[in-house]
Amino acid sequence: MFDPVTMKLNIDPLIMGALREDISGEDVSTNSVMPTSKAGMVTLICKEEGVICGLQVFERVFTLLDEKTEVKFFVQDGDNVKPGEKLAEVYGDIRVLLSGERTALNYLQRMSGIATYTSKVASLLEGSGIKLLDTRKTTPNNRIFEKYAVRIGGGNNHRYNLSDGVLLKDNHIGAAGGVKEAIAMAKEYAPFVRKIEIETEDLDMVRDAVEGGADIIMLDNMTIDMIKEAVKIIDGRAEIEISGNVTAENIERLKGTGVNYISSGALTHSAPILDVSLKNLHAI
Amino acid sequence: MFDPVTMKLNIDPLIMGALREDISGEDVSTNSVMPTSKAGMVTLICKEEGVICGLQVFERVFTLLDEKTEVKFFVQDGDNVKPGEKLAEVYGDIRVLLSGERTALNYLQRMSGIATYTSKVASLLEGSGIKLLDTRKTTPNNRIFEKYAVRIGGGNNHRYNLSDGVLLKDNHIGAAGGVKEAIAMAKEYAPFVRKIEIETEDLDMVRDAVEGGADIIMLDNMTIDMIKEAVKIIDGRAEIEISGNVTAENIERLKGTGVNYISSGALTHSAPILDVSLKNLHAI
Amino acid sequence: MFDPVTMKLNIDPLIMGALREDISGEDVSTNSVMPTSKAGMVTLICKEEGVICGLQVFERVFTLLDEKTEVKFFVQDGDNVKPGEKLAEVYGDIRVLLSGERTALNYLQRMSGIATYTSKVASLLEGSGIKLLDTRKTTPNNRIFEKYAVRIGGGNNHRYNLSDGVLLKDNHIGAAGGVKEAIAMAKEYAPFVRKIEIETEDLDMVRDAVEGGADIIMLDNMTIDMIKEAVKIIDGRAEIEISGNVTAENIERLKGTGVNYISSGALTHSAPILDVSLKNLHAI
Amino acid sequence: MFDPVTMKLNIDPLIMGALREDISGEDVSTNSVMPTSKAGMVTLICKEEGVICGLQVFERVFTLLDEKTEVKFFVQDGDNVKPGEKLAEVYGDIRVLLSGERTALNYLQRMSGIATYTSKVASLLEGSGIKLLDTRKTTPNNRIFEKYAVRIGGGNNHRYNLSDGVLLKDNHIGAAGGVKEAIAMAKEYAPFVRKIEIETEDLDMVRDAVEGGADIIMLDNMTIDMIKEAVKIIDGRAEIEISGNVTAENIERLKGTGVNYISSGALTHSAPILDVSLKNLHAI
Amino acid sequence: MFDPVTMKLNIDPLIMGALREDISGEDVSTNSVMPTSKAGMVTLICKEEGVICGLQVFERVFTLLDEKTEVKFFVQDGDNVKPGEKLAEVYGDIRVLLSGERTALNYLQRMSGIATYTSKVASLLEGSGIKLLDTRKTTPNNRIFEKYAVRIGGGNNHRYNLSDGVLLKDNHIGAAGGVKEAIAMAKEYAPFVRKIEIETEDLDMVRDAVEGGADIIMLDNMTIDMIKEAVKIIDGRAEIEISGNVTAENIERLKGTGVNYISSGALTHSAPILDVSLKNLHAI
Amino acid sequence: MFDPVTMKLNIDPLIMGALREDISGEDVSTNSVMPTSKAGMVTLICKEEGVICGLQVFERVFTLLDEKTEVKFFVQDGDNVKPGEKLAEVYGDIRVLLSGERTALNYLQRMSGIATYTSKVASLLEGSGIKLLDTRKTTPNNRIFEKYAVRIGGGNNHRYNLSDGVLLKDNHIGAAGGVKEAIAMAKEYAPFVRKIEIETEDLDMVRDAVEGGADIIMLDNMTIDMIKEAVKIIDGRAEIEISGNVTAENIERLKGTGVNYISSGALTHSAPILDVSLKNLHAI
Repeated sequence: MFDPVTMKLNIDPLIMGALREDISGEDVSTNSVMPTSKAGMVTLICKEEGVICGLQVFERVFTLLDEKTEVKFFVQDGDNVKPGEKLAEVYGDIRVLLSGERTALNYLQRMSGIATYTSKVASLLEGSGIKLLDTRKTTPNNRIFEKYAVRIGGGNNHRYNLSDGVLLKDNHIGAAGGVKEAIAMAKEYAPFVRKIEIETEDLDMVRDAVEGGADIIMLDNMTIDMIKEAVKIIDGRAEIEISGNVTAENIERLKGTGVNYISSGALTHSAPILDVSLKNLHAI
Repeated sequence: MFDPVTMKLNIDPLIMGALREDISGEDVSTNSVMPTSKAGMVTLICKEEGVICGLQVFERVFTLLDEKTEVKFFVQDGDNVKPGEKLAEVYGDIRVLLSGERTALNYLQRMSGIATYTSKVASLLEGSGIKLLDTRKTTPNNRIFEKYAVRIGGGNNHRYNLSDGVLLKDNHIGAAGGVKEAIAMAKEYAPFVRKIEIETEDLDMVRDAVEGGADIIMLDNMTIDMIKEAVKIIDGRAEIEISGNVTAENIERLKGTGVNYISSGALTHSAPILDVSLKNLHAI
Repeated sequence: MFDPVTMKLNIDPLIMGALREDISGEDVSTNSVMPTSKAGMVTLICKEEGVICGLQVFERVFTLLDEKTEVKFFVQDGDNVKPGEKLAEVYGDIRVLLSGERTALNYLQRMSGIATYTSKVASLLEGSGIKLLDTRKTTPNNRIFEKYAVRIGGGNNHRYNLSDGVLLKDNHIGAAGGVKEAIAMAKEYAPFVRKIEIETEDLDMVRDAVEGGADIIMLDNMTIDMIKEAVKIIDGRAEIEISGNVTAENIERLKGTGVNYISSGALTHSAPILDVSLKNLHAI
Repeated sequence: MFDPVTMKLNIDPLIMGALREDISGEDVSTNSVMPTSKAGMVTLICKEEGVICGLQVFERVFTLLDEKTEVKFFVQDGDNVKPGEKLAEVYGDIRVLLSGERTALNYLQRMSGIATYTSKVASLLEGSGIKLLDTRKTTPNNRIFEKYAVRIGGGNNHRYNLSDGVLLKDNHIGAAGGVKEAIAMAKEYAPFVRKIEIETEDLDMVRDAVEGGADIIMLDNMTIDMIKEAVKIIDGRAEIEISGNVTAENIERLKGTGVNYISSGALTHSAPILDVSLKNLHAI
Repeated sequence: MFDPVTMKLNIDPLIMGALREDISGEDVSTNSVMPTSKAGMVTLICKEEGVICGLQVFERVFTLLDEKTEVKFFVQDGDNVKPGEKLAEVYGDIRVLLSGERTALNYLQRMSGIATYTSKVASLLEGSGIKLLDTRKTTPNNRIFEKYAVRIGGGNNHRYNLSDGVLLKDNHIGAAGGVKEAIAMAKEYAPFVRKIEIETEDLDMVRDAVEGGADIIMLDNMTIDMIKEAVKIIDGRAEIEISGNVTAENIERLKGTGVNYISSGALTHSAPILDVSLKNLHAI
Repeated sequence: MFDPVTMKLNIDPLIMGALREDISGEDVSTNSVMPTSKAGMVTLICKEEGVICGLQVFERVFTLLDEKTEVKFFVQDGDNVKPGEKLAEVYGDIRVLLSGERTALNYLQRMSGIATYTSKVASLLEGSGIKLLDTRKTTPNNRIFEKYAVRIGGGNNHRYNLSDGVLLKDNHIGAAGGVKEAIAMAKEYAPFVRKIEIETEDLDMVRDAVEGGADIIMLDNMTIDMIKEAVKIIDGRAEIEISGNVTAENIERLKGTGVNYISSGALTHSAPILDVSLKNLHAI
């Protein structure tokens, strides 16, 4: 669950933006046939197998439109759901149910899709002690939702954005004049509560990173053999993250390499949605 | 291309939101190693075959951060691109290139992914005279980008949102008391520049829709046989849209049915991204 | 009535803007004499004959300032009201009643003025089967209120803005290379749920518009004789809108011409206000 | 002219709001026929006799959309203009000229209408030494434009809003317990740079206001005889403002009464627009 | 107390900004250990002697995050408080209490610091009949809080900002061509509800200011002897304000000079905070 | 210097807010005497000894109002400045110079005050190897400016806000059930790029923190003897931060204790401003 503070400060404005995107003037169809308030109910039905995620956002879409709307949930975020399963009942002004439907479902389907895909990938690492990480390859203006869905799916979050974590890439290293120099500059500049992560592309860089005192060393696009060699070099003196086109298809080869983390952009940028639907709206 | 008015009024605020999502304070890594301005250049490289889309948005991310940034493009939206192809060169303050990179790529990859998938589906309808449509199943706060990508991919746009088109669904029909009643109410209420579209689930509803004077009749989740029968009933008196879980895998069966439009939510909600990358940043 | 979704998404921000325009710091006069909360009541009195409109907006001004404010209405939007008639009683913190008064009345007076004037013009068309339309000649940042007032006064709304309707004017026709070309391009480009309206200035253009398949043909600034000739040419193949300096003084001559719509910018840009007033504020 | 600081801080956000009101997505008509940039020119023509006002706002609408737009003016705010007179030429991307037209004209017509009406009323007071004042009866979210138009028309501005002036009305007086008490409380509470104005309805209140040390005394809805008596009582010890349904039709009777100011809500709430138009758009 | 209208319109947006500054994503520490809602209570304790101010803002921080939070106060704004004194108890979701703590205290400490320092300075003027004024030397985006704190501390407010008061300084006088010219231009231009204040640096300017009809004359950085001379020249024909590096250390020498006001920037720009603290949070 | 990305995304909106706070309508005084544009120049003069900071923000205030304004600096952030020293010359429209003056100075004075005070405190730690840290006790909506000023003054930044650093305080420990439990929960929950800091109040807590694997241990309000004991216990296994009412007066006693960091809220919450002034504005 999102905590109430995050909802109020950082999620409500995004949902309001999404609603205004879909209703720039009025909902013409609904207003044509429903000139006044009418109490109604609609059922949220699952249409695909997967991990449900985003129920709180789904609910907030409706309560932001009309605080009197009530949602009764039969599942919670992280539950495995099946086709035909009733997930929730929504009670409120039928006009609100109709006007909020698409935005609520767009969030829920996307978040559940990411949780489902993450869960599938994470399960491939089970027992390996390796943690699955997301990246910043998220849909613009949706990061807070997508990173949450990764957690619900059993993944872990890498840094949230450029402001709250240090990750020195090849360009930073080039600008600094070398691996050790980059690490030293970051330790000097960044708030001391940050760990320093650095991206390496070969074993010399790995050695320099260890000697420079990096907290986390990312092995980028290395072969399994190189990874194993790097793990030996590092020898517990830094945490190790594997990165580079990791997907459900190819992740298992990384088990047993002794690394701590594997990050995958696909978790957020290429997961298909999970199909859910609002059905059987009727007056009550 | 987006026109300049749309860019200024409706796209800039979304890009600014996306940038603030990724840079809530400062880019700590970049600022650690690059305390002052330095002119540089980076190359945009394609890593997968597909249809490129969103180049203008990619550029805007950088020029909103620093209007002096310049982008030299070697392709334009809608071009087929190949792995290894150089798509553009970006010139500017290296700090701006580093800080804007992820947001620019997140837009470009997603829009290109949608254009690529749409292009693939649209090609399956080639020669059939049927137009491929998108839906409102878009990512929240990204509709303007995703609907544009559908057009670039060879698709067509259905209504933009609830305010600029009338589509009477089962719930509206129920509230109105029947198909004909719903159409009559919408004709009375909605601005007269709108066509009236109505969703039908069986042939009786189709008959009522024609008699009620609907401009467009959606056949929702009907079998091929029912669709053919419906086409006969309608007999040119309204345009016809097919809807319901249409994907690249199953769309061809609909050719030759005589319908005008096929809509598919998958175009926007489940297209994987197209992989592109910024490479070889260096000072100049 | 505005539906609750429109109120929340699209009207509240405008009212908040109007309130901040009038109260950029604090209400100095009120705070001088009323340091603490005090329950009070004030009466809304009509001072001119007309059609009342905007009661919900009037109420919202007060409830946005303090949700505990209560308004008891004795009339509803669209009612004919008379000088001296009590329209409503407002109950709440006297400071809120005083600080919100001007903004609430400014909305109510303007909306009622437009409804009153529209009602007068619409009545001149009674029995003719012609619908009276508004235009986009509205006061900036007030369109949603003014178009609503037109409906309450018995008029109908033309398109809401440039994004939700197609109206090809002389400049568009010039750019396209001709009437037929413009219509064809719009049919190709615009979402298919839009009707295509085109503005014509002579009978040749009318002929081209019909042949090009326009859905609606606007006859701009034509004489009665030309209008009659145009109606014959069109012969039911498109809807017809009359435009051009139509006011209460000159509208009746258009009855019996066989056109479908008459649009008038004066409805929104030149209607005087309807005088209403808050009277007899007292503690309770 | 508005100064550049006011334009940037307080006018630009309002114009951007107005433009987004009219272009919530894209200008469909223009984009249908004009897919790329094209240089063009259009002429601003006057269609009615009056006082032109708002040229700077008219220009800003276009330059906010595209800073390269250029406007060449042949008149300036406050000039008397005649039907057929060429007021300006606008040069820029034709798409920008088309998309900005309506918003630019809506501002210009309304502001010119107010300036024209104000000028007419002010001229009736010529030679009397009495200054004509506006009120807060302005259109919501348009006060800054409307108060400026009053000045251009030869009127003067009363306080801008509730935060920058003290005007004690009957309700404030009631709350304070009397005229003198209200004045004393306002002198104590309000920043000392404010004058204290108080509204009076009879001669006893006038006497109390003078004795209480009011800076300005408003005579509300008094007869000519009462006004003359009040002027004698005040005897130069305070400035005098006349208020209450003052219009062009009835203002002259107030000349020679010895008052300093007359305020009229009609200046802003009921002035009809001045008709101006953009004509003859063509490529250059 | 702030009135409810000011809170809603002008204070809430600032508090929300402050909260988003402190919680740009989520409160990681709190969410680590407190995954769900838990009712709790925390006590507000005073740690220094002073004048408490800002209790309403302190409360609003918590109720904006969660409207169910309740605060029970044992003191009110303006009370003298002592180390160890219990000022309030806050009841609510522990996560809300933890996440809002710093922002609530930052406001309360700063406002109380200003009230305390102002109170100290104002007491030095006791019995002199001279009013102590603040200036516009406030912390950006905090003026509404700081000017309120000055009032609570026993000071008075000068104009709120550049838009609601006229103060002609040397540069304005230079631009106008002289003291009298500047006064005349301001009387002509500024809304007539404003008093005209002018800054003078020598006795000739004082003479001109009186003759020009200034309402308030500021004596800037004058010696005691010059001030006494200026008071004689003005002779009750205008109010007098003393300005120029006035602090607690040097203010008493100004008593008995016959001036009306003394303004001091130090009240807002250099007051240290008053230390208060939230203690003993526990579940209930 | 702030980098250009931070300026655009996160500083510009705050400066615009500050300007609108000071100019809610127009600058009445300036507009009274200066109806049109006039080129001018004004000089920034130092009036107190200290460390200058915020020159870029000072400049941005003017260039946001009018991009043509130019500032020529003779010093840079971090320089020691002396009374009477010329710091900069500002060239531009005199109206812009006058209207922006106060806001520009308010930022510059406050930031310089903090840099000056921090510099003084930091110098007391010179040679000790201990780094001086700020806290979150900053002025609301000014943190980005104040934390920058601490760095310019020779201090270091602790975490920016609740979202980008983990600091487990007594309440978090209580909720978790103990020091070790809290650390374990944070390691599990927080993004792995964060170090875990924990606050301790006695030596038992210190021992638990070391055993639990805390990265940073804060010793809160401990005596010198306890601090020395804690340093022994920790023995290099975690970094050590001292906290608790540290000021310039009492900081030196902490030298030689072997701690790594000392944090002080006073740096930002109680530094007096540094007096600087704009002088000698004249036309050019």
